[in-house]
Amino acid sequence: MPAYKAPLRDIRFLMNEVFDYPAHYQTLTSGQNADADTVDMILEGAADYCENVLSPINQSGDEEGCTFNNGEVTTPKGFKEAYDQFVMGGWQGLSYPEEFGGQGLPMSLNLIKSEMMGTANWSFTMYPGLSTGCMNTIMQFGTDEQKNTYMPKLVEGTWSGTMCLTEPQCGTDLGQVKTKAEAAADGTYKISGTKIFISAGEHDLTENIIHIVLARLPDSPAGTRGISLFIVPKFIPTADGGVGERNTVSCGSIEHKMGIRASATAVLNFDNATGYLIGEINKGLHAMFTFMNTARIGTAVQGIAHAELSFQGALPYAKDRMSMRALSGKKEPERVADAIIHHADVRRMLLTQKAVAEGGRAMIYHAAKLADKMADALASGDQAAYEAADDKLGFYTPILKGFLTELGLEAANHGIQVYGGHGFIKEWGMEQIARDARISTLYEGTTGVQALDLLGRKVLLSSKGKVVRDYTAEILKFCAAHARNKYLRRFAWDLTKLCAQWNTLTVRIMLAARKDRDIVSSASNDFLMFSGYVMMAYFWAQQAVIASEKLEAGNGAETPEFYKAKIKVADFYFDRLLPRAQGHAESMVSTSRTLTSLAPEHFSFDY
Amino acid sequence: MPAYKAPLRDIRFLMNEVFDYPAHYQTLTSGQNADADTVDMILEGAADYCENVLSPINQSGDEEGCTFNNGEVTTPKGFKEAYDQFVMGGWQGLSYPEEFGGQGLPMSLNLIKSEMMGTANWSFTMYPGLSTGCMNTIMQFGTDEQKNTYMPKLVEGTWSGTMCLTEPQCGTDLGQVKTKAEAAADGTYKISGTKIFISAGEHDLTENIIHIVLARLPDSPAGTRGISLFIVPKFIPTADGGVGERNTVSCGSIEHKMGIRASATAVLNFDNATGYLIGEINKGLHAMFTFMNTARIGTAVQGIAHAELSFQGALPYAKDRMSMRALSGKKEPERVADAIIHHADVRRMLLTQKAVAEGGRAMIYHAAKLADKMADALASGDQAAYEAADDKLGFYTPILKGFLTELGLEAANHGIQVYGGHGFIKEWGMEQIARDARISTLYEGTTGVQALDLLGRKVLLSSKGKVVRDYTAEILKFCAAHARNKYLRRFAWDLTKLCAQWNTLTVRIMLAARKDRDIVSSASNDFLMFSGYVMMAYFWAQQAVIASEKLEAGNGAETPEFYKAKIKVADFYFDRLLPRAQGHAESMVSTSRTLTSLAPEHFSFDY
Repeated sequence: MPAYKAPLRDIRFLMNEVFDYPAHYQTLTSGQNADADTVDMILEGAADYCENVLSPINQSGDEEGCTFNNGEVTTPKGFKEAYDQFVMGGWQGLSYPEEFGGQGLPMSLNLIKSEMMGTANWSFTMYPGLSTGCMNTIMQFGTDEQKNTYMPKLVEGTWSGTMCLTEPQCGTDLGQVKTKAEAAADGTYKISGTKIFISAGEHDLTENIIHIVLARLPDSPAGTRGISLFIVPKFIPTADGGVGERNTVSCGSIEHKMGIRASATAVLNFDNATGYLIGEINKGLHAMFTFMNTARIGTAVQGIAHAELSFQGALPYAKDRMSMRALSGKKEPERVADAIIHHADVRRMLLTQKAVAEGGRAMIYHAAKLADKMADALASGDQAAYEAADDKLGFYTPILKGFLTELGLEAANHGIQVYGGHGFIKEWGMEQIARDARISTLYEGTTGVQALDLLGRKVLLSSKGKVVRDYTAEILKFCAAHARNKYLRRFAWDLTKLCAQWNTLTVRIMLAARKDRDIVSSASNDFLMFSGYVMMAYFWAQQAVIASEKLEAGNGAETPEFYKAKIKVADFYFDRLLPRAQGHAESMVSTSRTLTSLAPEHFSFDY
Repeated sequence: MPAYKAPLRDIRFLMNEVFDYPAHYQTLTSGQNADADTVDMILEGAADYCENVLSPINQSGDEEGCTFNNGEVTTPKGFKEAYDQFVMGGWQGLSYPEEFGGQGLPMSLNLIKSEMMGTANWSFTMYPGLSTGCMNTIMQFGTDEQKNTYMPKLVEGTWSGTMCLTEPQCGTDLGQVKTKAEAAADGTYKISGTKIFISAGEHDLTENIIHIVLARLPDSPAGTRGISLFIVPKFIPTADGGVGERNTVSCGSIEHKMGIRASATAVLNFDNATGYLIGEINKGLHAMFTFMNTARIGTAVQGIAHAELSFQGALPYAKDRMSMRALSGKKEPERVADAIIHHADVRRMLLTQKAVAEGGRAMIYHAAKLADKMADALASGDQAAYEAADDKLGFYTPILKGFLTELGLEAANHGIQVYGGHGFIKEWGMEQIARDARISTLYEGTTGVQALDLLGRKVLLSSKGKVVRDYTAEILKFCAAHARNKYLRRFAWDLTKLCAQWNTLTVRIMLAARKDRDIVSSASNDFLMFSGYVMMAYFWAQQAVIASEKLEAGNGAETPEFYKAKIKVADFYFDRLLPRAQGHAESMVSTSRTLTSLAPEHFSFDY
């Protein structure tokens, strides 16, 4: 397993040079304390914790996995100690209010910390990650009493949280939720039902686990409009903030999974468990959707995390492993053969990993600024600012989640491929990265769900294509602003054509959808991938522009090669990955009949 | 884990309707006994064995894996019994000479049997599969004495074989082989060295294991011209064909792998082991290359095997699992939601799996006829016929192996994706298929090696583009011959354009390569994939033409829907998968500088 090294040079390039986080933080209430020294301390502290505590237990955690015994779950060796250090470091409260014991810093810092943690050890990071969902729910919809009861412990990290949505019969289609909630005389509710796939649903890291549960009241309407949200703690909190009576929610088993084996995925049985309504009755699903965007950005991070870690594993191997000679002549005549990094096709794989990790990181760090604005607006009650940021983020989210996790999976597989047969052997750790990455296109909405959210909801239904028009206008403005930049020139031409094509495709599908509703589904995956490739191209162009400016200004005197590499990888991206967009463009405009005309019973005649 | 059902309808469609195997068999010496009844008996016998013996131990074999204890390897529960049935059924000798106890039937029948076995249980199929390599070596290069000593037991299956090529420091670059062979006074050799990744290198299925070992004599030249081939039996055969003294080859350990966990991958230590020279001194690598093509076709089968099995798992789930409503309106109003097969994007994944499995099967069954011709020419000593068939197969091989395994991996991943989160859970068996599939792009030459073999050796070096010109001429001839077929018309236009483009790209790279040797490596992957997409398009067009003729002739009266489905899947392929070729076309002609200009030390600045 490659030892994780936090890519701080790249992180700082994006924060300070590309996106000007220091200026951005000055505009935020939560950013006032995020001065350069604080940010540096956080980046370096997180890097240290990730490199020295989380990374060393990534492979052993996979080998050992979680164990289930009579309702109790034991996490792998070293997880409890690592979690205790996480609590001690105050890491859980980084971006939560000071009144609950947090540090009140911008959300983006939390995301960047999570990226490092997730790259070092995704399984581990799932535990505090799920608490975030729980805390956000309580912060946005909880009563003051609920906040005071749960937030201090959650912010501290001594309690953790979950989101209990999925049931055996439904995941995406939450209108099918069957878990029942019945009002008790004391104002609480009795929750009964089975939830599956509950990440961090049971474990030995914290003294209490706070479940946020989707359930249905007896007189609620069927479908999505009849779902309410309940807080169901594993132990009922006592008045003094301690842990009281054990609630009747129990872990029936944990799943045996392809990857993220150190993350406990629980089946939870609620047996007349005591629950507390949070938010309005029957508005539970609506509440969930409120921070779906930020949750999904958190999962999008997984795309770059596995691309980064797999790249970190593949690069030294490619420099070390000797095989054959480069076609253009011996590169290392003193060795028995050239290192495989001298073969162009191996470089294609390494550069793909690098382009995905760094291009994706840029996309996410840009989106993180919007998440900051949303959090700030929410805290200050500025509804208009909140909605403006949420609308923008709503367009990015399915692209980031859907596109980046698909490319992250590809990048993780390139890491195996660079190792040849050795990539298939557990000892090297490369195959674990691909197994861990495999979940990312499945949970928090599959790629198919992201694609439909993007094309069906965000592009067509909500905006009639306006989001694409606005976004491409932004790209064109960028191209115009840097028209004299010699590096941008070749990118600008591609970007300009692609912007036109993106709008044309949108209009074509919009018109076709009037007669052919299925085209929205049949075109959705190609539209998502096309959008992703264009968006990533824009972020590579931005990085190249900044890098070239630094070089011209002589600012890059200490590390000119860093900036030159940025320009070269941008070149690679435009030459080698961006052309894939054309295959998607061609495929998406074909009739949906090709997909829909075969009757289900005629898919196979053999079984 | 999906229970395997042999796709006999499709297999017979290809054998009898598309490729006219009956007529082909009449042209072969080995085909005289392959009459319709015999072929039917074999297909149905193999299907029965695969469905009822091999399929049931596929998932349990993965869970249990092989165990290593003090040099001995135990295969999972049920493997020994299944292997005994394999021996009893005479399956190993299907295509080997009657004089050694085989049935002397065409090679293609063996390949089709292997496809069924491999789809039902790839791990199991590795054991008899490696024997094939060993038998082919002995048949082609062994002395009569060697043939008489080893072939009867190998053909029977009571002994098995291996190919010992890879060493810790080299896999692809076999010129680096270090294993030593020293001549002993009695005409035998003493072999010393370590071989790794030896599939079926040690196990409990057979009474003896015959290793074919690449090693180097002390006075041999360095590199690839100094490698000889040796037979190193685990037990020295006795004069009466029994098992004698234990040889000093031992299994040091077995690998822990991502997939094919029931297939033992051994580290073998040769410690002055007794070996017998086979073939000429220093011509060992040349001998290996002689049947590289057929070996690689055997691995190409893995692409369609996992696509098929994953499709067989995904299809019933897609019909059963209910989620949301189809965009064009309720399809199953009586159910709480529509089955997910009604969502166009789910169909996209299922149809991709089907298109890969059936399109790839057609490509392989076509190539299998060439393998038959080679075997026939070899037996009859017709060198010219042998080389003609080998040349043709040499062009197909890297495309089949490289392209089909890449698409097989994609198809296996679609199977997971159709299941959503459930695809990630071991219990369902879908993730095992993807793990098992993952090896296919790595062994028997990585995709990168196939790509370079295709573009560098087969297209540019050996034929200066002639193989592409010849092959595209064949496609165009086909288009002309069926110009009046109404279904073909739309395919013919695409195919014609693509043939021209394939030749143009070849010439462009050939010209560019004069100044830029690296372009052969930098373009190779895109060239391979482009070639694969076009070739598969041709085979889908062929299937559609035959299907339409059957429909027109009323032959399809019993199963018209089978033929209609063939045409619809061909439509799908041309609309949805073939456009990807354009991305590859655009990417391959960009300068190799994009890949080569970054210095190894500038790939990362963070670690």
